Amino acid sequence: MNEHISSAYDRDLEGITTLIMKMGGLVEEAILKAAKSLADRDVELAEEVREGDKVIDAIEIQINEEAARTIALRAPVSKDLRSVLTVLRLAASLERIGDYAKNIAKRTSVLVEMNPVNGSDAALRRMAREVEQMLKDTLDSYIRGDADLAEDVRQRDQEVDQMYNALFREFLTFMMEDPRNITACMHLHFMAKNIERMGDLTTNMAEQVIYQVTGEMPDEARPKGDKTAYVTDPS
Amino acid sequence: MNEHISSAYDRDLEGITTLIMKMGGLVEEAILKAAKSLADRDVELAEEVREGDKVIDAIEIQINEEAARTIALRAPVSKDLRSVLTVLRLAASLERIGDYAKNIAKRTSVLVEMNPVNGSDAALRRMAREVEQMLKDTLDSYIRGDADLAEDVRQRDQEVDQMYNALFREFLTFMMEDPRNITACMHLHFMAKNIERMGDLTTNMAEQVIYQVTGEMPDEARPKGDKTAYVTDPS
Repeated sequence: MNEHISSAYDRDLEGITTLIMKMGGLVEEAILKAAKSLADRDVELAEEVREGDKVIDAIEIQINEEAARTIALRAPVSKDLRSVLTVLRLAASLERIGDYAKNIAKRTSVLVEMNPVNGSDAALRRMAREVEQMLKDTLDSYIRGDADLAEDVRQRDQEVDQMYNALFREFLTFMMEDPRNITACMHLHFMAKNIERMGDLTTNMAEQVIYQVTGEMPDEARPKGDKTAYVTDPS
Repeated sequence: MNEHISSAYDRDLEGITTLIMKMGGLVEEAILKAAKSLADRDVELAEEVREGDKVIDAIEIQINEEAARTIALRAPVSKDLRSVLTVLRLAASLERIGDYAKNIAKRTSVLVEMNPVNGSDAALRRMAREVEQMLKDTLDSYIRGDADLAEDVRQRDQEVDQMYNALFREFLTFMMEDPRNITACMHLHFMAKNIERMGDLTTNMAEQVIYQVTGEMPDEARPKGDKTAYVTDPS
């Protein structure tokens, strides 16, 4: 058989891959819009993010259905089967990242009523951009089968964790200085935690890509930078 | 063929089901131990939860491998394929629930240094028991193919969300009354949020079971009781 003719399986996988890249692009956009809606106190933009999440969820359902159909019709084995199962896991992670972006947008509508807290909006926006870039690179690493790029994303999660630690300590300080800051700080802190979790999920996806490309999960434990579980009182 | 002889596929699925029930039992135990370690300020028990999470993660990897092998060797289609894909999704949710229990245990080791905050330990323990019971029922509903029990679990997530709302407001009040409470309240609030997320994940699992048993995802939106995104200042 002419090896330039792709198999039915190859065409199916290409269709599913197109869907995951489409889903990934929408999630990247949701992350940036959620952060922008917060910084600009833009309630309409926040509402767009919330509506957009339905489209993201619908694509995940479509990916699940097409993956099941591909498995049933083409009976892929070994690497081909692993590719389909990988896409399912990536789609599930993307859906959760999209949910976190939506949760940030929900809180923006409440925060508009409150005074900004000392530069934290800008810090949150930086964290969000960092995570969006990690996601973009993870999706690229998947398309290109680039395990080195995926490993680089894994390492960058530490920077996101450090940004989160710094914000956490800042919030504790603001709250102690002035109890009127407490409610706003609680909401902002939620948002920071959501962005940090998006970073973790993106790192999970990068590990899936490494597994897909090399056949092995990365073994050394990923560097975990979130030390806030150990915070006692800030000095 | 004698229909009392189970197929090779049936035996494989039974093996994977046994693994998921084992994993589920360990996660239920982790939830209860994490909450107990907090209430009793028991650092050794918290450490057991953290160690136990490695076993939970290892079983998920095993389930993934056996599911891939079953798909490759038995080429299941339609309902049989859906069963295998369902197990993969349940295992991924269980692994995340286990992680949240571990995160609660991590914070217990820090909280032992701080004064208890007004009955919140007991409230957290009640929430954790509620979620553990939801998980137990979800796993039962899966084994028994009982979509009604799974639907009941979905509805109960609202109670967990309400317990969370009440705790969130209490924490805001305590922090405003006395800034020395702030650090302890932040940690306790994290734990409450983790338990609330465990409830959400358990509800996702219940929805998967409904899909598995009936062939359709439940359509009316699950009742979402977490209103904390809309909290302004407590009156």
